Amino acid sequence: MSDSCEEKKAAVADAVKAQGEVVRRLKAEKASGQTISEEVKKLLSLKEQLGLEEGKHTFVLKTPKGTRDYGPRQMAIREAAFKVIVDTFKRHGAETIDTPVFELKETLTGKYGEDSKLIYDLKDQGGELLSLRYDLTVPFARYLAMNKVTNIKRYHVGKVYRRDNPAMTRGRYREFYQCDFDIAGQYDPMIPDAECLKIVHEILTELNIGDFIIKVNDRRILDGMFEACGVPSEKFRTICSSVDKLDKTPWSDVRAEMVGEKGLDPEVADRIGQYVQKHGGQALVEELLQDSVLGPNAACKAGLTDMRLLLGFLQIMGITQQVRFDLSLARGLDYYTGVIYEAVLLSGGDPQTGEEGGEGGVGSVAGGGRYDGLVGMFDPRGRRVPCVGVSLGIERIFSILEAKQTDVRTTETQVLVASAQKDLLEERLKLITELWGAGIKAEMSYKRNPKLLSQLQVCEEMKIPFVCIVGHAELEAGVVKLRTVLTRNEDSIPRDQLIEEIRKRTLCSPSPQ
Amino acid sequence: MSDSCEEKKAAVADAVKAQGEVVRRLKAEKASGQTISEEVKKLLSLKEQLGLEEGKHTFVLKTPKGTRDYGPRQMAIREAAFKVIVDTFKRHGAETIDTPVFELKETLTGKYGEDSKLIYDLKDQGGELLSLRYDLTVPFARYLAMNKVTNIKRYHVGKVYRRDNPAMTRGRYREFYQCDFDIAGQYDPMIPDAECLKIVHEILTELNIGDFIIKVNDRRILDGMFEACGVPSEKFRTICSSVDKLDKTPWSDVRAEMVGEKGLDPEVADRIGQYVQKHGGQALVEELLQDSVLGPNAACKAGLTDMRLLLGFLQIMGITQQVRFDLSLARGLDYYTGVIYEAVLLSGGDPQTGEEGGEGGVGSVAGGGRYDGLVGMFDPRGRRVPCVGVSLGIERIFSILEAKQTDVRTTETQVLVASAQKDLLEERLKLITELWGAGIKAEMSYKRNPKLLSQLQVCEEMKIPFVCIVGHAELEAGVVKLRTVLTRNEDSIPRDQLIEEIRKRTLCSPSPQ
Repeated sequence: MSDSCEEKKAAVADAVKAQGEVVRRLKAEKASGQTISEEVKKLLSLKEQLGLEEGKHTFVLKTPKGTRDYGPRQMAIREAAFKVIVDTFKRHGAETIDTPVFELKETLTGKYGEDSKLIYDLKDQGGELLSLRYDLTVPFARYLAMNKVTNIKRYHVGKVYRRDNPAMTRGRYREFYQCDFDIAGQYDPMIPDAECLKIVHEILTELNIGDFIIKVNDRRILDGMFEACGVPSEKFRTICSSVDKLDKTPWSDVRAEMVGEKGLDPEVADRIGQYVQKHGGQALVEELLQDSVLGPNAACKAGLTDMRLLLGFLQIMGITQQVRFDLSLARGLDYYTGVIYEAVLLSGGDPQTGEEGGEGGVGSVAGGGRYDGLVGMFDPRGRRVPCVGVSLGIERIFSILEAKQTDVRTTETQVLVASAQKDLLEERLKLITELWGAGIKAEMSYKRNPKLLSQLQVCEEMKIPFVCIVGHAELEAGVVKLRTVLTRNEDSIPRDQLIEEIRKRTLCSPSPQ
Repeated sequence: MSDSCEEKKAAVADAVKAQGEVVRRLKAEKASGQTISEEVKKLLSLKEQLGLEEGKHTFVLKTPKGTRDYGPRQMAIREAAFKVIVDTFKRHGAETIDTPVFELKETLTGKYGEDSKLIYDLKDQGGELLSLRYDLTVPFARYLAMNKVTNIKRYHVGKVYRRDNPAMTRGRYREFYQCDFDIAGQYDPMIPDAECLKIVHEILTELNIGDFIIKVNDRRILDGMFEACGVPSEKFRTICSSVDKLDKTPWSDVRAEMVGEKGLDPEVADRIGQYVQKHGGQALVEELLQDSVLGPNAACKAGLTDMRLLLGFLQIMGITQQVRFDLSLARGLDYYTGVIYEAVLLSGGDPQTGEEGGEGGVGSVAGGGRYDGLVGMFDPRGRRVPCVGVSLGIERIFSILEAKQTDVRTTETQVLVASAQKDLLEERLKLITELWGAGIKAEMSYKRNPKLLSQLQVCEEMKIPFVCIVGHAELEAGVVKLRTVLTRNEDSIPRDQLIEEIRKRTLCSPSPQ
């Protein structure tokens, strides 16, 4: 809408408001019916004018801020990535569930800490207060508590909503997909946790989007370390947030934040500094278990013992080369209670923006951890259901795949039914109906008398591998011309053998996806 | 939350408000620091109390009104139905697109007539005014105009939102899936229209949910009939709405509404009555073309000529037995401009509620038509892109399938890796890692030392067809015991032949879905 148009509309709107006030006052003063009705007439005329102004305004043709459409090519890439992800979840025996895109507002309240301000609320229309889901984890926990499910292995692929400042060129959106895999249930330590990491490893390997590393830590190690280093307990979460910035910020800046903004004793900060800059593997676990400060701390010890177990399992699964025990990993969300992890792309970064993946956090494609307390927050009796899970962010993965893949088919059509001469529409319809009936993916032109050349061009453009050409001569001879688009070879196939022949050839042809 | 709890909380909230007012006033009056700080202290204490009250309140554990979760069994059924639908769309050469779940509010304005009041609005949070999408058709038209797409054949499966009074037992929800197939582009008459009907026919046949009929009509026939019968043109849409009720209401009631509520001349109503109660096939088209009232009307003639063409194409496609030209079909939405159709289940109805499908409209599972003007409403230059499409409502289909199917697997797991003795966790991990690496769908217990019996029970429950049993003796002998759950037959398979053997057996075993 142009500014001047906007201004004019606003002026009329103001006039409507003022005139409405006049009418209300007259009614309150019990003015004569005649007077009131005259003023009402003026009001209606102004309202009509406003309506016309509104009708006239130029339409803004866009999607909401931070959202986008997916066109056919993008969808083909996205669905291929979903297939890799979902197939992996299924290979590990997961079921799937679905939950509504919005939840009661109070279901989300108190789960996301500071980020709660990013939640989309719906307008209260005289019903319930509703919000769009912020992740798939909280609805999952609500589902478990509501249905009294105490163990399940489930995946869920769905859109979530965050009113963040979108950095769309970096693959950050306000509406985006998450692919979640979670294991709920009371089990022996670290066995389901190890499987979550194995799944991330399998998916990132199969997607073939470059080298990656999975950082692992444990909230109990962090909390125990804070305690042992002398951080006051009420500062645990805020110091944890500072530590979380170490992937993007040097220690000196993080230390300054701890001491300056958050009022942490400089000596305490320095003690933390020794630890949070460490990363390694099983040897680091042993070193910290022997450490004179951390070793005796109960929380640290519990976390480190489990870390030893976890790394042992991952060793058997053959994925320790891409796994790093990293004391700087903290993760933002409040609800984690044990092991936490995050997968980061190492090289390549985002080829669309030329941004380095590095370890700057921008390459983060998956994250998760253990949250043993969340379901209990929903259960009326506070019954706990231990959970561990991982969430893959498809948008970043998608933008890498999109830049990599240049040759994508958007349909799976195997055969175009074409005609060589005029007046063959009915014959094409007859043939294509047979093909559809046999489960063959087939298309035809929606023109009554399309040119043969333009029909063949469609096949080249859409990469349709075969053409059935119907012609008067062929009809008389009881055959169909079957053309292979790539080789331009044509064979006359008896009509009653056509389907069998197409089935044979499409099995051998390059698979449509 | 109990009422008394609610009241107490409200009282504290009021006290917080009042105290806040006190503090603000003191500050404005520039009272002494001492006085202010005392009152601030009181305010903080009240706020804390409010926080505690909030923490105490009993949580309402539910999904929003008119929505539901899908559990694993429901999802398995839903995904099987989606597969039939999407495979059909793909067999007809469709691409897919995706659009955001919300649109700018003005994108939806003026597209749905009276039903606009059912649109969910988001809260204005200082940004754009947004609404949840009401169908997939308007976002599709917006997409075409925005991306200047002038021809495409696309499908879109997605959730839509309507603040209707939900009748959930009858499969009506506020959040529900639509599966849309549309053909956009300037083509020869009725060829794409016929394909839409063919697709509906293929899907309903393959879903095997009982007999159905597809009613067909044309907005031009309706409008021409109104004109020829003497309905004033400003009453076309409202009389059209009355006609649309004929699937649930007898003609006498509809006539009463036309004459009583809508002020139609009784003679005109009777003239309409003759026609709207007619239905048939090609013969009815010919009869109406010869009709002394409708025959000469230009709109009627155009509609009837195209109907003749359409029924001819459907005859070639072999589906006229389930298609009925029905003059009472009107359809609610404003945007249709030509042929319209609706698929109705004839028998069975909803087995969950015992409700008859009948022809009472309650059995409606798909609908659509031609909308040649919608894209032009979005295009800045009003460029028209003719469109025709169909929308399948999955919820009703789903509830029929859910009642029919009793034996549904929710996972695809092929093999459970079990242990016969203690201390074999590491060995199970080693074996399952091999299986996953070979693409075999495998699970194992998350207990360190699970009992063999309980592991075998899981297989029976989850219908996992095979078990690999790891035992100390087998390890020494370099073999794995492979058990077929159904027959309880066990074979010792050399470890290096295990994967090959499983592949062979799982190919022969009943398919997992």
